[in-house]
Amino acid sequence: MLKTLNLDLAIDQARLSKTLDQLAQVGKLPEGGVRRIAFSPEDVAARELVRQWMLDLGMMVEIDAAGNLIGVYAGKNSDIPALATGSHIDTVPSGGRYDGALGVIAGLEMIRTLDDHNIRLNHDIKVIVFADEEGTMIGSKAISGTASLKASDYRRTDGQSIQECLANIGGNWDKLATARQTPQNIAAYVELHVEQGGVLEAIGREIGVVEGVVGQQRHLIKVTGVPNHAGTTPMSMRRDALVAASSLVLAVEDMAKHYPGDPVATVGAFQVWPNAANIVPGYVEMTVDIRDLSQTTIDHLVAQLRRKIETIAVSTRTRITIERMLSVQPTPATPKIQDVIVEVCQQLELSDSHLPSRASHDAQEIGRFTDMGMIFVPSKEGISHSEQEYTTPEQCAQGANVLLKTFLKLDSLY
Amino acid sequence: MLKTLNLDLAIDQARLSKTLDQLAQVGKLPEGGVRRIAFSPEDVAARELVRQWMLDLGMMVEIDAAGNLIGVYAGKNSDIPALATGSHIDTVPSGGRYDGALGVIAGLEMIRTLDDHNIRLNHDIKVIVFADEEGTMIGSKAISGTASLKASDYRRTDGQSIQECLANIGGNWDKLATARQTPQNIAAYVELHVEQGGVLEAIGREIGVVEGVVGQQRHLIKVTGVPNHAGTTPMSMRRDALVAASSLVLAVEDMAKHYPGDPVATVGAFQVWPNAANIVPGYVEMTVDIRDLSQTTIDHLVAQLRRKIETIAVSTRTRITIERMLSVQPTPATPKIQDVIVEVCQQLELSDSHLPSRASHDAQEIGRFTDMGMIFVPSKEGISHSEQEYTTPEQCAQGANVLLKTFLKLDSLY
Repeated sequence: MLKTLNLDLAIDQARLSKTLDQLAQVGKLPEGGVRRIAFSPEDVAARELVRQWMLDLGMMVEIDAAGNLIGVYAGKNSDIPALATGSHIDTVPSGGRYDGALGVIAGLEMIRTLDDHNIRLNHDIKVIVFADEEGTMIGSKAISGTASLKASDYRRTDGQSIQECLANIGGNWDKLATARQTPQNIAAYVELHVEQGGVLEAIGREIGVVEGVVGQQRHLIKVTGVPNHAGTTPMSMRRDALVAASSLVLAVEDMAKHYPGDPVATVGAFQVWPNAANIVPGYVEMTVDIRDLSQTTIDHLVAQLRRKIETIAVSTRTRITIERMLSVQPTPATPKIQDVIVEVCQQLELSDSHLPSRASHDAQEIGRFTDMGMIFVPSKEGISHSEQEYTTPEQCAQGANVLLKTFLKLDSLY
Repeated sequence: MLKTLNLDLAIDQARLSKTLDQLAQVGKLPEGGVRRIAFSPEDVAARELVRQWMLDLGMMVEIDAAGNLIGVYAGKNSDIPALATGSHIDTVPSGGRYDGALGVIAGLEMIRTLDDHNIRLNHDIKVIVFADEEGTMIGSKAISGTASLKASDYRRTDGQSIQECLANIGGNWDKLATARQTPQNIAAYVELHVEQGGVLEAIGREIGVVEGVVGQQRHLIKVTGVPNHAGTTPMSMRRDALVAASSLVLAVEDMAKHYPGDPVATVGAFQVWPNAANIVPGYVEMTVDIRDLSQTTIDHLVAQLRRKIETIAVSTRTRITIERMLSVQPTPATPKIQDVIVEVCQQLELSDSHLPSRASHDAQEIGRFTDMGMIFVPSKEGISHSEQEYTTPEQCAQGANVLLKTFLKLDSLY
């Protein structure tokens, strides 16, 4: 019977668009974007709006200690773990209407669609609005049990304490640990999100089947040469820190380009001293940021980088040090969920492509303790974290339909 | 008879050292250096000291419109052009005791030595203290006729006008053009100077026979790529301005290293935008400074640079522009004067090496209208424009002796 329903059941594209638009009114910016910084009055107002929509559907709604807003659409069997979806509705200071919001509203529309047809799955469905995705990720990290319990780790430039922040949205810092969930609460989690990159648009595919959220390592590299007169110092007597650093920039680019798979590596911050036209540079500081789905790949690239540093230090007669600033483990998406998403795309005649998520998402934290999948829809010109962020209503509905059909299939798999 | 004299005649090393030390008292700094900024009270006091020493030797002393202090030690034949030497006694804000000062004091000691022995050359000998070598070079440029006559070209951070500056030292802005000299006034000019680089020390030679003062071209290069998210932008979709700029840095280094002769090329100033660890760089500005004795070499290197820019712009899909900021023509030293210096070194059993002057000197301006030569003595560790600048008393005397013997030979050549 479900099989037949699968074919008929579809998201109401107009209602999805309208709901996205209603949410985008809260914290609306003049050029079409949104400013809804976590814990701010705009964030609080948007959360209240979503909470009301959930209640209108008869969902049970709770806010956990981490401030996550969780709506439950009851299933037929309350003894088995839930299936979950969600995302976030906080934004960067000058953000777009889709980043995060689409995942939350598509989850809500999935419930509305099921409710329209009086369908209950075997599993409960949880729709989660995670707290502060754009900042600390305290919401999804508290659920996965990886959130720091040290208040000082959450120090903010505005001086507000994390205690106050959580209180603003109905959380409770003192009970943060109680927000933790397990595979006994959530059997599988699937998040719909805009790509925030230009791959799907470039290759002309409608749906991205996320292979996982990449891990990241960031290093600070310091190159010490000898500053010298650019006129009187012959080429052979120089210890030019910029020449050494430039060799490293090209080595980083080359490593990432030629390593199997699609790792990315970036020298983004780069500063030269004394930075004068007539002085051979004596010192350079630079960052190297490496991201990939495979921790082994990241580790290999860092090892290659260290070997390159040794070679370049010798050949340029400079001293080069490297220190780790940041390390985040990758989260692979569960293969069987990826397979389900691919099947759904074929069924809906949507073109798809596997790709990694190279940006952070709440899914990366939820995937640390339970089965996880992510669905991407294209971002126009790959633009994100910008008022210009755009995904068409049709693309949003395609993503939401894939989410809905994926849940129907997962209901019989879990 | 002069031949015999040549062998006996020698600079008094103790007196040379003492005179250098007396001069170094004017504007003395705590760590052994000197602050005697052009046109300042210290500069004025030091010029007065040298003027008195010249008068004590019975030299005719004049100050020309450009503020150059010129002492003439009369020769036997007043109908022929003079031979000249000199340098400067102004310093950078935190300068050494030798840069410039050695050339002036060695010229004075040459006259003292000739005077001690009652020797007059056929030619008049002019000892010139050039005005403002460390700044505008207005003194030597006025003599060669290349000084700008636009007062606004001499704008200073301290607000003093060039008119006031010249008046401070006895010059006269309104008559600047009258300072010009010709080969009919000066048949040949030879300047002794500390090397201000580390070549002589590195190769263990006592005397540098300068092949000329290098020319210089400086360009500003702007690299425009596309700033992008360092996580979500695959390597193949990037237009990384820093990767393009780094390729250029290495190309500049490579060009200079492999071009015949010893040109130098430096990327000294280098700035990256937006300069954040998680953003692919979108824009870089950098300077390229090229110096060589041969204008042809400079022109070839700039042409190579332009070709490299085209190739790199295409391969990195960036836009790269280049504009010239500065161009100074090289001044070759007169070959016959170089030969004389080499002969003198052999005679005095001093080891010598030909080398270019890669720093600016008054000689580069005088060499634009008459025969010119320069003699270098080593600088300890190549340090200059620093209180730590050092050349031993023996090295100073070796240089002064080479200067003296060179003048004796030039007297019969010109």
